[in-house]
Amino acid sequence: MNEADFIAALRKLPLHKSARGLEDDAAVLEVGSETLIITHDMLVEGRHFLPQQDMADVAWKLVATNLSDLAAKGAEPLGIVLGHMLGGDDERFVEGLDEVLTHYGVPLLGGDTVSGDAPRAFGLTAIGRASRTPVPSRAGAKIGDAIFVTGTLGAAMLGFEALRDGTGGDDTAYARPMARVMEGMDLAPLANAIMDVSDGLLLDAFRMAEASELTFAIDSTKVPVADPERREDALRWGDDYELLFTLPEGTLPPVPAACIGAVEPRGFAPLFLDGEPLVNAEGLGYLHE
Amino acid sequence: MNEADFIAALRKLPLHKSARGLEDDAAVLEVGSETLIITHDMLVEGRHFLPQQDMADVAWKLVATNLSDLAAKGAEPLGIVLGHMLGGDDERFVEGLDEVLTHYGVPLLGGDTVSGDAPRAFGLTAIGRASRTPVPSRAGAKIGDAIFVTGTLGAAMLGFEALRDGTGGDDTAYARPMARVMEGMDLAPLANAIMDVSDGLLLDAFRMAEASELTFAIDSTKVPVADPERREDALRWGDDYELLFTLPEGTLPPVPAACIGAVEPRGFAPLFLDGEPLVNAEGLGYLHE
Repeated sequence: MNEADFIAALRKLPLHKSARGLEDDAAVLEVGSETLIITHDMLVEGRHFLPQQDMADVAWKLVATNLSDLAAKGAEPLGIVLGHMLGGDDERFVEGLDEVLTHYGVPLLGGDTVSGDAPRAFGLTAIGRASRTPVPSRAGAKIGDAIFVTGTLGAAMLGFEALRDGTGGDDTAYARPMARVMEGMDLAPLANAIMDVSDGLLLDAFRMAEASELTFAIDSTKVPVADPERREDALRWGDDYELLFTLPEGTLPPVPAACIGAVEPRGFAPLFLDGEPLVNAEGLGYLHE
Repeated sequence: MNEADFIAALRKLPLHKSARGLEDDAAVLEVGSETLIITHDMLVEGRHFLPQQDMADVAWKLVATNLSDLAAKGAEPLGIVLGHMLGGDDERFVEGLDEVLTHYGVPLLGGDTVSGDAPRAFGLTAIGRASRTPVPSRAGAKIGDAIFVTGTLGAAMLGFEALRDGTGGDDTAYARPMARVMEGMDLAPLANAIMDVSDGLLLDAFRMAEASELTFAIDSTKVPVADPERREDALRWGDDYELLFTLPEGTLPPVPAACIGAVEPRGFAPLFLDGEPLVNAEGLGYLHE
């Protein structure tokens, strides 16, 4: 089964009413008067990280990608649960885990440790508490909203290339992505829609437009990119973990962000880039394996 | 690193105050007025299941083992989050998942789907709500308590052997273990200590005695076993997922269970079996790889 077929099959199971997590990046679980946000990401050797990568960076990324999913829901992280396959460089893994948990002030709750052979696989569940209800989603954009993105795109791409090609260039943005946890909590009360840009700006904007059943018009020149000569690539490369969000017209963003376009009634395509319609998700970003 | 070293290293990280989950089987997380129980188990091909096993059974076991950890905390399951590595027989995996979620009335919340090569690895997080606080633990046994176990031990062993040897014998107890969810909730208000017997009765009783800093005296002839001729093996074999618990003297168990011994002041060894001291965990059950 490919991923799409598998997810289609899962949709026939007993699902929680909030189980958009099958295609969205986090589940929303109401418990009494509390609203929890739950995310799970796996990293597999050879698919999501290279065997020669520093395992401290792998641990960092495993946590940061999950915290980024919480950030997109405006959630305060409460803790993480780790599924760890023992192997080489576990010391470095623990060091990286220590660094990322300390940086974000998030505690380890527990988990499971198993033996295994290469390729190794790790899983991580992050649990957060909604800072606002209803919880922001990718589906809430409104006509007339302004579209924003935090940070600079393409930095992770340059970092990946430096690592892959052994140029000695700075690979921090790829190796140690930052989750926009505080920004997400600041945005939650104001934004109509939020998601994290994990698979490329254009692909994620396409998905947000589809989920909101509207059209996003984006001006590529407004997008802050790490290297202007690589602008086209930067719009399609993932792993930056910035936040893409929409605000009602006239609302100033409470966090540093660039306005890159506007939300329009549903037109010919979900996405217009510099006036050109993009009708298909193919080629817009990183489609998951 | 071996598992013990890895867990020792994790203990130096930012830990949640309830992160006994590193050696206990579940984490306790207080959120506002709610108390959540969170478990995570991984299953790895070749370690925890055989490549030729029915993937529906693997999915069942992945869920049931986590629900068993919730049961030992007296928790009501709220949902599960799945980390799934795509591969052969995903149709059967989904069918087994459907069956176990329907059986327990537990919804799928979300998760992550990744591509991978053999050996496959799956992770599952189960989230439950405590039905009683303080949450029962393995450390709460008191001097004078009676020791009980639910069900019949050794059935999973016989099922495993039938599967391994292709005898055509009934492998249900091994392939489709039952988590004692309702029993756990019934026991939570009464029991001083509860844990699930996943690694063998003697080993888990040894651990409960160690955690409670007392001595458990067990009469092996009182333990219900599937095959009396295999009693010695049945006491040491895991995978039955029955509940081991202690009740104050004179308290009748609210669920079907056999009284197998009594809790005594800490003596020469944590465990006495038919009057013989057992000072070492080695050989008592399944020590995790």
